[in-house]
Amino acid sequence: MKAIIQNEDGGQLSVSEIPVPKPGKGEVLVKMIASPINPSDLAFLRGGYGPEKTFPVVPGFEGSGIVVASGGGILPKLRLGKTVACAATPKKQGCWAEYMVTSAASCVPLPPEVSAEQGSMMFVNPMTALAFFDIHHSFSKEKGKKIGIINTAAASTLGQMIIKLANREKIPLISVIRREEQIETLKNAGAEFVLNSEAPDFDETLKILAAKLDAMLVFDAVGGKLSGRLLNAVPSGSRMYIYGRLSAEECSFNPSGFISQEKQVKGFLLNHWLKNAGLLKKLQTINTVKKLLKNDFSSSVHRKFSPEEISEAIDDYKNNMSKGKVIIRF
Amino acid sequence: MKAIIQNEDGGQLSVSEIPVPKPGKGEVLVKMIASPINPSDLAFLRGGYGPEKTFPVVPGFEGSGIVVASGGGILPKLRLGKTVACAATPKKQGCWAEYMVTSAASCVPLPPEVSAEQGSMMFVNPMTALAFFDIHHSFSKEKGKKIGIINTAAASTLGQMIIKLANREKIPLISVIRREEQIETLKNAGAEFVLNSEAPDFDETLKILAAKLDAMLVFDAVGGKLSGRLLNAVPSGSRMYIYGRLSAEECSFNPSGFISQEKQVKGFLLNHWLKNAGLLKKLQTINTVKKLLKNDFSSSVHRKFSPEEISEAIDDYKNNMSKGKVIIRF
Repeated sequence: MKAIIQNEDGGQLSVSEIPVPKPGKGEVLVKMIASPINPSDLAFLRGGYGPEKTFPVVPGFEGSGIVVASGGGILPKLRLGKTVACAATPKKQGCWAEYMVTSAASCVPLPPEVSAEQGSMMFVNPMTALAFFDIHHSFSKEKGKKIGIINTAAASTLGQMIIKLANREKIPLISVIRREEQIETLKNAGAEFVLNSEAPDFDETLKILAAKLDAMLVFDAVGGKLSGRLLNAVPSGSRMYIYGRLSAEECSFNPSGFISQEKQVKGFLLNHWLKNAGLLKKLQTINTVKKLLKNDFSSSVHRKFSPEEISEAIDDYKNNMSKGKVIIRF
Repeated sequence: MKAIIQNEDGGQLSVSEIPVPKPGKGEVLVKMIASPINPSDLAFLRGGYGPEKTFPVVPGFEGSGIVVASGGGILPKLRLGKTVACAATPKKQGCWAEYMVTSAASCVPLPPEVSAEQGSMMFVNPMTALAFFDIHHSFSKEKGKKIGIINTAAASTLGQMIIKLANREKIPLISVIRREEQIETLKNAGAEFVLNSEAPDFDETLKILAAKLDAMLVFDAVGGKLSGRLLNAVPSGSRMYIYGRLSAEECSFNPSGFISQEKQVKGFLLNHWLKNAGLLKKLQTINTVKKLLKNDFSSSVHRKFSPEEISEAIDDYKNNMSKGKVIIRF
């Protein structure tokens, strides 16, 4: 079968012929239809993100396809012949190939009204968005008030889903972007507060606004110096979750924020959240995603590419990240 | 009365004549006998540490003295005439003056066998050490195993108390120092594992040792690049508490530690810990300190200075931090 492979961290991608993998017990073989490029894929390709890689590695955290073989077990057999959204199993090969083996539990049959393309994007972004709001609910409870949220790289598909969910739940949200033209995009998407981190008054404005909105929960996909500026600006007792590293630089923080202002920094990785959430919350989250996939969670597709065009696809995605998703079609 | 005052963050200290303060309800007036210089005082003088300051400010977080006046209330009256260890009240003037007003609850009568000098050091270091072990117990419970501890600036008085407590409780401890000669000092103090962060193999050795000892709890008083190196070295799921900023630099962290390895960074400030601990734990901690003050918690005194010699005292303390405490005598 054809597969997109990488031979080292940060290395070029190429298309190779490799054997079709065989599903084991509890697993299925999925003939892939579509798979998006997500920021988490870029982080994975760069290295140091998620589970350890064994090279050559097939990237791709999520996709959709048809279950064409079962490795044995009740759930795998139930999935046979179904068009499913599917997530790669940690430490196994990913979605960017003609066929993928994954656990049957990581395959969700798509409702008839959801296309295979939309379905290919149902895990990473929608479930991350729901996880963020789940964290928000717990943290609000802990603080005894409805706190506000700050999200960065907010023009991303995930950022726009967060805007819709925040509006639906009437949760104050500050969307942080890095290019002036993204302000209008996000205002049109329903965002009330959009701040440009490149503006000279950003730090001061964020500080005032965060105090006003009790914005004590930060989700940061950028890292580097921005993380430290955000932590400086938020009220005492705030918590930051780093979930991406678009800047590729180390995060730097003023130690006083930790010591005197009881701020804290943690990380967010969807797989870890799902593991800690337990089965019930996982199933509830999947059900909510299915319900919202046609509206709040629909992702606009910017361009589609064949596996052979993977390098072009990645460049296009990197350069037009806020224009919509880039999809690989198999 | 004579008081040591500072007029701006990082500013020189001087001795001024200011009015003797008057205690309000629940408060007492303490005629100060002795007060140590702690790393937290240096951080306070530099600014950005602890509660906001109103200048001119009298520094000094802890000391000892005789209660000479009550502002009214049962506890203040009970304290009248007693020799006490006392802590400054946040946002009020500190201990480095002939007299200090503080809440009666922040005054602990000294047992007859404890000198006023030893008593002047019973809050900050001993209670911080006990707080660290309290955090250790909770975190070990959360992880389901007895985890190890890493402490930096470990040749400090606090560092040596931590060594004694860890030995008493048989908790694996890695003491991190920055000067080769401190290794012997700490080995003599009973430390089993002492690593020099300036050694070329420090990061690799720490990584191996931390994995072996399940050292997932880091207390860092240094900050800057060291914080990031420590977080890189510890096992997945580790937690770091920043409690000092001796390096005066920003802490820098690899975002992958947060995202992929579920590590987290928080701060530690004794006042916050006491506030969150509640009255019962606070009283238990004070009782434990009283019990251990004659042995595990005794601090060796390096030199004593008069208030007029404060600048010399601070220089001496900074240059000989691992030689023992520097005390101001009133």
